Amino acid sequence: MATTFTTQRRVEFCETDAAGIAHFSAFFQYMEQAEHAMLRHVGLSVVQDDDEGTISWPRVAAKCEYSGPCRFEDVLDVSVSIAELQLSSVTYAFTFTLDGAEVAVGQMTAVCCRIEHDRPPLPIEIPSSMRDRLLPFAG
Amino acid sequence: MATTFTTQRRVEFCETDAAGIAHFSAFFQYMEQAEHAMLRHVGLSVVQDDDEGTISWPRVAAKCEYSGPCRFEDVLDVSVSIAELQLSSVTYAFTFTLDGAEVAVGQMTAVCCRIEHDRPPLPIEIPSSMRDRLLPFAG
Amino acid sequence: MATTFTTQRRVEFCETDAAGIAHFSAFFQYMEQAEHAMLRHVGLSVVQDDDEGTISWPRVAAKCEYSGPCRFEDVLDVSVSIAELQLSSVTYAFTFTLDGAEVAVGQMTAVCCRIEHDRPPLPIEIPSSMRDRLLPFAG
Amino acid sequence: MATTFTTQRRVEFCETDAAGIAHFSAFFQYMEQAEHAMLRHVGLSVVQDDDEGTISWPRVAAKCEYSGPCRFEDVLDVSVSIAELQLSSVTYAFTFTLDGAEVAVGQMTAVCCRIEHDRPPLPIEIPSSMRDRLLPFAG
Repeated sequence: MATTFTTQRRVEFCETDAAGIAHFSAFFQYMEQAEHAMLRHVGLSVVQDDDEGTISWPRVAAKCEYSGPCRFEDVLDVSVSIAELQLSSVTYAFTFTLDGAEVAVGQMTAVCCRIEHDRPPLPIEIPSSMRDRLLPFAG
Repeated sequence: MATTFTTQRRVEFCETDAAGIAHFSAFFQYMEQAEHAMLRHVGLSVVQDDDEGTISWPRVAAKCEYSGPCRFEDVLDVSVSIAELQLSSVTYAFTFTLDGAEVAVGQMTAVCCRIEHDRPPLPIEIPSSMRDRLLPFAG
Repeated sequence: MATTFTTQRRVEFCETDAAGIAHFSAFFQYMEQAEHAMLRHVGLSVVQDDDEGTISWPRVAAKCEYSGPCRFEDVLDVSVSIAELQLSSVTYAFTFTLDGAEVAVGQMTAVCCRIEHDRPPLPIEIPSSMRDRLLPFAG
Repeated sequence: MATTFTTQRRVEFCETDAAGIAHFSAFFQYMEQAEHAMLRHVGLSVVQDDDEGTISWPRVAAKCEYSGPCRFEDVLDVSVSIAELQLSSVTYAFTFTLDGAEVAVGQMTAVCCRIEHDRPPLPIEIPSSMRDRLLPFAG
């Protein structure tokens, strides 16, 4: 059974658009912020130093489907779980609800990478210290 | 044969992140801006008034896949075509290249809606005056 | 003696830039979000309907001075007070601290306006029901 | 006589808010983008490598005053000049006009800094190769 991490996110005014609703691109920021909150919750960070330098998680794919408009000051419930945990990548699944009704679902795939200045990110195997903390969300 | 609309987009500093690259969420704004440029190019706008009020195009789905990092001041070539033109929705397809190499591909589905104050957007059939201008991109 | 409203704001990854710090423009969003939190705290909203329609608060001036860099996942303490409460405008003053050290100070002036569709915002006297709730912060 | 650099900026949909106008924080991004365009115009970049590493220009102050609303697809004329050129800092002055009418004015002060990983930015004297290219805008 996979554990689900839940957090809340209020729609801020600068995230609304002239149609009076939260701009669709804001949900990708909401997803990432929920991911980062989940990582903090288990003692990790999306940018982390180890003995060899810096490890981070560039995104290789993201998608979102919208089923209802969200407005300024709406407080969304965001749930995060892991749809797929691979050797060097994680696919997070997100569900957004407002007053119990689903308003959006999304996914985001991030690849564990060694980050060095002026070089493209280098994919690496997820260190076991990190994998162990992600496993409960993968079920 | 579908027509492709092409435009360019420079990566701005505020769109980069602490990993030194364009933040993945920026590409959803790039996609929308390319869509709006394409609409302007054929004499349309994503928010348009007619005799009965306002027509706009809320997004119901968006996705992007990333194959290479983009950095501050990189100038991306963005191509837009229509992957699917339905009765009341359009699915746009986007390709981002940097110096000829593909760095991202994406899709975005927007639904033609009648917009009224304090009501959820109401899907309507795409007016023929709009459909006629979109058709060439649908091939 | 003026009351000060305090809130916290975490620096999100998408708000950092390639220099590795929170982008300076993010602080204007932080200021506004702190203002809105303060308004909610006293039972108001920055967009509010009354018998005659909608009242909102367009910004006519904003400024910020930065004294130290803020990084991803830093949690800023934000304090809000009212530097000046005029007949139809409010100037908010903000102080940002990180671990007790000041990192930025800012001000923002908003004008109470009647908002009507397709018309420029019309400045009005701040309704007494609103003014009464703002007064404690003006000292 | 100071030279003025001019550029244009279209208000994008994601920059509008539920009040139907360009969000006030967007103007700080417009200012920075106009600064960067001006720097490119004279062969500079706001992030530049030299023999000793990286030079960049963290912002220490920014302000904007708004005199009229801007809406989706409005094309703003942005003019940039240098209000003050100090030993290690530049204060840029910006004027935004729409169809010839001023809609906003702003200023931004940036400090020339040596940037090193994991250290606060270190202010340095503006290298003469850079100063020479900025001087014409300072009058």
